[in-house]
Amino acid sequence: MIIILKKDPEQKQLENLKAWLASQQLSIHESRGDSHTILGLVGDTSAVDIDLLRALDIVEDVKRVQEPYKNANRKFHEEDTIIPVGDTQIGGDIFTMIAGPCSIESEEQICQVAMAVKRSGATMLRGGAFKPRTSPYAFQGLRGEGLQMLLAAHRLTGLPVVTEIMDLSQLDLFRDVDVIQVGARNMQNFELLKELGRSGKPILLKRGLASTLQELLMSAEYVMAGGNQNVVLCERGIRTFETAARNTLDLSAVPLLKKMSHLPIVIDPSHATGIASVVKPMALAAAACGADGLMIEVHNDPSHALSDGAQSLTPEAFTDVMAAVQAVLPLACRYRNGKVV
Amino acid sequence: MIIILKKDPEQKQLENLKAWLASQQLSIHESRGDSHTILGLVGDTSAVDIDLLRALDIVEDVKRVQEPYKNANRKFHEEDTIIPVGDTQIGGDIFTMIAGPCSIESEEQICQVAMAVKRSGATMLRGGAFKPRTSPYAFQGLRGEGLQMLLAAHRLTGLPVVTEIMDLSQLDLFRDVDVIQVGARNMQNFELLKELGRSGKPILLKRGLASTLQELLMSAEYVMAGGNQNVVLCERGIRTFETAARNTLDLSAVPLLKKMSHLPIVIDPSHATGIASVVKPMALAAAACGADGLMIEVHNDPSHALSDGAQSLTPEAFTDVMAAVQAVLPLACRYRNGKVV
Amino acid sequence: MIIILKKDPEQKQLENLKAWLASQQLSIHESRGDSHTILGLVGDTSAVDIDLLRALDIVEDVKRVQEPYKNANRKFHEEDTIIPVGDTQIGGDIFTMIAGPCSIESEEQICQVAMAVKRSGATMLRGGAFKPRTSPYAFQGLRGEGLQMLLAAHRLTGLPVVTEIMDLSQLDLFRDVDVIQVGARNMQNFELLKELGRSGKPILLKRGLASTLQELLMSAEYVMAGGNQNVVLCERGIRTFETAARNTLDLSAVPLLKKMSHLPIVIDPSHATGIASVVKPMALAAAACGADGLMIEVHNDPSHALSDGAQSLTPEAFTDVMAAVQAVLPLACRYRNGKVV
Amino acid sequence: MIIILKKDPEQKQLENLKAWLASQQLSIHESRGDSHTILGLVGDTSAVDIDLLRALDIVEDVKRVQEPYKNANRKFHEEDTIIPVGDTQIGGDIFTMIAGPCSIESEEQICQVAMAVKRSGATMLRGGAFKPRTSPYAFQGLRGEGLQMLLAAHRLTGLPVVTEIMDLSQLDLFRDVDVIQVGARNMQNFELLKELGRSGKPILLKRGLASTLQELLMSAEYVMAGGNQNVVLCERGIRTFETAARNTLDLSAVPLLKKMSHLPIVIDPSHATGIASVVKPMALAAAACGADGLMIEVHNDPSHALSDGAQSLTPEAFTDVMAAVQAVLPLACRYRNGKVV
Repeated sequence: MIIILKKDPEQKQLENLKAWLASQQLSIHESRGDSHTILGLVGDTSAVDIDLLRALDIVEDVKRVQEPYKNANRKFHEEDTIIPVGDTQIGGDIFTMIAGPCSIESEEQICQVAMAVKRSGATMLRGGAFKPRTSPYAFQGLRGEGLQMLLAAHRLTGLPVVTEIMDLSQLDLFRDVDVIQVGARNMQNFELLKELGRSGKPILLKRGLASTLQELLMSAEYVMAGGNQNVVLCERGIRTFETAARNTLDLSAVPLLKKMSHLPIVIDPSHATGIASVVKPMALAAAACGADGLMIEVHNDPSHALSDGAQSLTPEAFTDVMAAVQAVLPLACRYRNGKVV
Repeated sequence: MIIILKKDPEQKQLENLKAWLASQQLSIHESRGDSHTILGLVGDTSAVDIDLLRALDIVEDVKRVQEPYKNANRKFHEEDTIIPVGDTQIGGDIFTMIAGPCSIESEEQICQVAMAVKRSGATMLRGGAFKPRTSPYAFQGLRGEGLQMLLAAHRLTGLPVVTEIMDLSQLDLFRDVDVIQVGARNMQNFELLKELGRSGKPILLKRGLASTLQELLMSAEYVMAGGNQNVVLCERGIRTFETAARNTLDLSAVPLLKKMSHLPIVIDPSHATGIASVVKPMALAAAACGADGLMIEVHNDPSHALSDGAQSLTPEAFTDVMAAVQAVLPLACRYRNGKVV
Repeated sequence: MIIILKKDPEQKQLENLKAWLASQQLSIHESRGDSHTILGLVGDTSAVDIDLLRALDIVEDVKRVQEPYKNANRKFHEEDTIIPVGDTQIGGDIFTMIAGPCSIESEEQICQVAMAVKRSGATMLRGGAFKPRTSPYAFQGLRGEGLQMLLAAHRLTGLPVVTEIMDLSQLDLFRDVDVIQVGARNMQNFELLKELGRSGKPILLKRGLASTLQELLMSAEYVMAGGNQNVVLCERGIRTFETAARNTLDLSAVPLLKKMSHLPIVIDPSHATGIASVVKPMALAAAACGADGLMIEVHNDPSHALSDGAQSLTPEAFTDVMAAVQAVLPLACRYRNGKVV
Repeated sequence: MIIILKKDPEQKQLENLKAWLASQQLSIHESRGDSHTILGLVGDTSAVDIDLLRALDIVEDVKRVQEPYKNANRKFHEEDTIIPVGDTQIGGDIFTMIAGPCSIESEEQICQVAMAVKRSGATMLRGGAFKPRTSPYAFQGLRGEGLQMLLAAHRLTGLPVVTEIMDLSQLDLFRDVDVIQVGARNMQNFELLKELGRSGKPILLKRGLASTLQELLMSAEYVMAGGNQNVVLCERGIRTFETAARNTLDLSAVPLLKKMSHLPIVIDPSHATGIASVVKPMALAAAACGADGLMIEVHNDPSHALSDGAQSLTPEAFTDVMAAVQAVLPLACRYRNGKVV
């Protein structure tokens, strides 16, 4: 961390500042220029509040040199994290394909979709039981009952299941779930993240709509600081001024996160764009730039069009996407331990 | 709600759509143009999923005519909402001035600040016990113990207290708190909002960093749909590309929300900008454009500079801001029932 | 276009409005609901000012049904536009690979780069003579002299050349340039666009940093309305809150623009991200999702590191990217006339 | 400027870097920590390309300590700039009120508005002759003819006039204009800015829709580097994700720019919001937080509603806004030489 002091800092305040920094176990390198004096801090600055330092009268600016995340940081953990899930894994040489409906509607529905996506090559099943909906008047999911239906589909097909938790009070119900998803709106629900840090379950952590990659890694850090190293990062579109699609899918997150962190990265083109016809090109792009997996919405009942969300594929369309992705994968950009190979 | 159909829609699908709309208790006005057929829907469309309709093959686009919020909507509730809090109120002819430290650090600290801000004219006391911090390594607040200190300051000064809840499991601890704050990061924590809807407490709902005004009102709607009409809206800066301040304070939210909703609006210039020297001009601007109140960070210990957040005022600086705001108020833009008076 | 009237509109004003609409050659379909009356307008609404209508007392809202662009609109021009450039083309079955240095520095430099990228398979040469720089103190390009060097490289290699115009007064100098680039900062320099509409040259139009896809097409429309149909759209990153890369590359622009327009689309991963190591994965992603081409910065002098921009590849790195892109192309998502094939 | 090197930088490359820095007349302070070596640069770094340094293999990151603008920088020019315009001025103790129609439609119209706004207390007249319109099919302004009408209104009322230039080829026509406006879309039209730097005219420079305050000052720097110190900064709303108003008015720009620069700041609430009913509250807010002036759209013909833009006030409404602003001004936040007084 570098502290840039204002010109001619008041001496008493400067001594106070240095004494306080020393009390934080930080050593100080001072260098005086014509117009600025600079303090370089050496030591663990991850707990130092940068805004607090900026507030001081004698301080012009503060710049971080070290990232504030440690467990999630590639620099301190060079090797790629691979997370075992059931018979499969997330990260490493396996490309993860998570598919399933937005909402679980019935045991029959989720089982049918599960069998269909398994046939097409999906490695995991997704399905929402607790649904975060903008409107209180919209369908809120089948909740605990929906989880039971999802587990039935798991027993039927053997596919590991991923589903979203909305509040830490629901955690007991997720005992048999393979991967717990934290939604974009909960990415900074820190009480929930801390609790998940105490669980051993793999966590699929979705990037918030207005969260930077560094903030995503800080949220991963909350889980990891609690002892749970099994975090999967998921890019699902960010909020920008563009309204042609629901959100803007930020695929440069893949190479950037590969450099910043050792955690695996999954892309959700369905939620990012909200448009079924855009899912295939974006899935191919995500595979090509080196993502570790995809999460795609698939719905089983194409004839009953009205229950079909705008972003859902039919099982047939999903089969087509799967085949196209698998064809591209051998030619895709691949990383090992943060380097393109 | 208006559904714009593609040219020459498939007849069978159009009939299916109309039958489904009718089953939702909506009546349909059809008008055929040269290039488009338009279906106008009459009835309560607040539960209709607009993305679902957009997904249909025969649909080109869907536009909402009616807002999806009802309880929070000025159109259905013309009169301004006034929320009684202790001996004072939020909304109506009283300008609310909420002041206090970012974090509660000790009973002595919170009591000193409480006395100081009361002397300067604050009508309510704020102070954080549960602190949402980006880093798991940063101070997380004194939690339950902090709440007790805040209540001690309330007993000492009589000032009603506002403090943030971070998870619904903490709700029991908030029994004696006057106003429960929902932070920006929790604005779409729907499980929490539902639970607060069952409580009778006034809720100060902060706008999310990337939330539209309509989404803010939809979150208010979650609380109100549960039966709790006492919601205060709070603008605290939105995330944009500009980095000169922490966030961009969106003051046009004041006149826009006055038109959209009957709920009172409070502005937090401290968190919005993160810069103490910008708090006074932004507080004056907020008062001038007709906000119902302000929420300002004040810290008691200017000599011990290092415990002072970048956005906190000293009690002396707060006294100066209070006086300036009170001078501007009689000349400010005022609204009654959504109209400038 | 649909006009939603307020409840109980003043009759005189409504008649005025209808008379004015009729004078614009628009016919009107009126449908009255319980809470709203809706006017559906049929005819050419591309010149109607939507803000002007919204300003009327009796109007609640106005929604566009038809896009305001005509020449650029896929609906009125189903077939993909293919633009012949020298011996090659942009659009159709040829994948365009434009490569070259950010700035032209000398005839030797641009000729060396030109020969190198031609060997690697580039189909066109880029190089900046007029440089838009944020700082007036930074190098502004070799200007007219630089153009001459670029043309020398063209004569040497036969590669068609693309270079940026910054002001319409420079147009005469661009006589022998094959494709004129309009930079992101000039995307809404309407006087320049009009003038380029009168030239027959192919125009590579870069999306503005904060421009929607619709605005990009409206700027293309300015050129096309003047008679020049040879417009290539270029996505080069948009401005968002994320600071990990220079801008956020919006690859969903590819499938979305393919639906909206018949114009070819080229992706510039170098400027979008500003990070050389991110260019390869983003180039592969762009190819995989169906872009018609890439524009990549290549610099010739890897040993003299200081003249190398952050986003430039060495010729060797470019050869590697070219090979990887060409391998992916046969498996990429391809469109014909707006449909995935 | 601070260069943070990667751990164990290659020695040869480090020497090359230091030699190059020395050749730029920069002296270097090196400080070695455990994990990073830091180079502090002393000297004029305004021409150093930060991206170029970041691209070097041995460099981890580069941080600017000094701002890249000099002429516009408060640090090098403490005293507020006051710009004389006709009998009045912009900046200093005079509050500037610029009013007039969006477009000049006829001599009669512009003269009537000019007389009306003068009566209400406007100090300058605005009116658009060259109109930047998103659509090529929309009215493009009366151009040269419109300028003549504007000058007639000037002769009639004595009000100095402000009007927008769209291309440097139009500059001759602006000989008798008092203040030349550069629109938001041209804020980074660097060729135009350079040319205006050679003119002695006051320039009203509007902030681009996606431009940071630092970029706004860099564009001012372009004009000032050419010798023209008469630049007025204008905030007119930035583009964000919020769609309730046309843009988001960023009023914190006022106190922030007052600290960064000595140039006067004018606020345009009409274009920022695009909603007439929001102009008054935002005008009051701008005055209260210490802006040097306002720019407000006023149209003369309220009965002919259809020629009235959504953001225009009637002369009567403008009189009301003027009176309200003048009442607030004595109580507003005021700055002298960058300090709140």
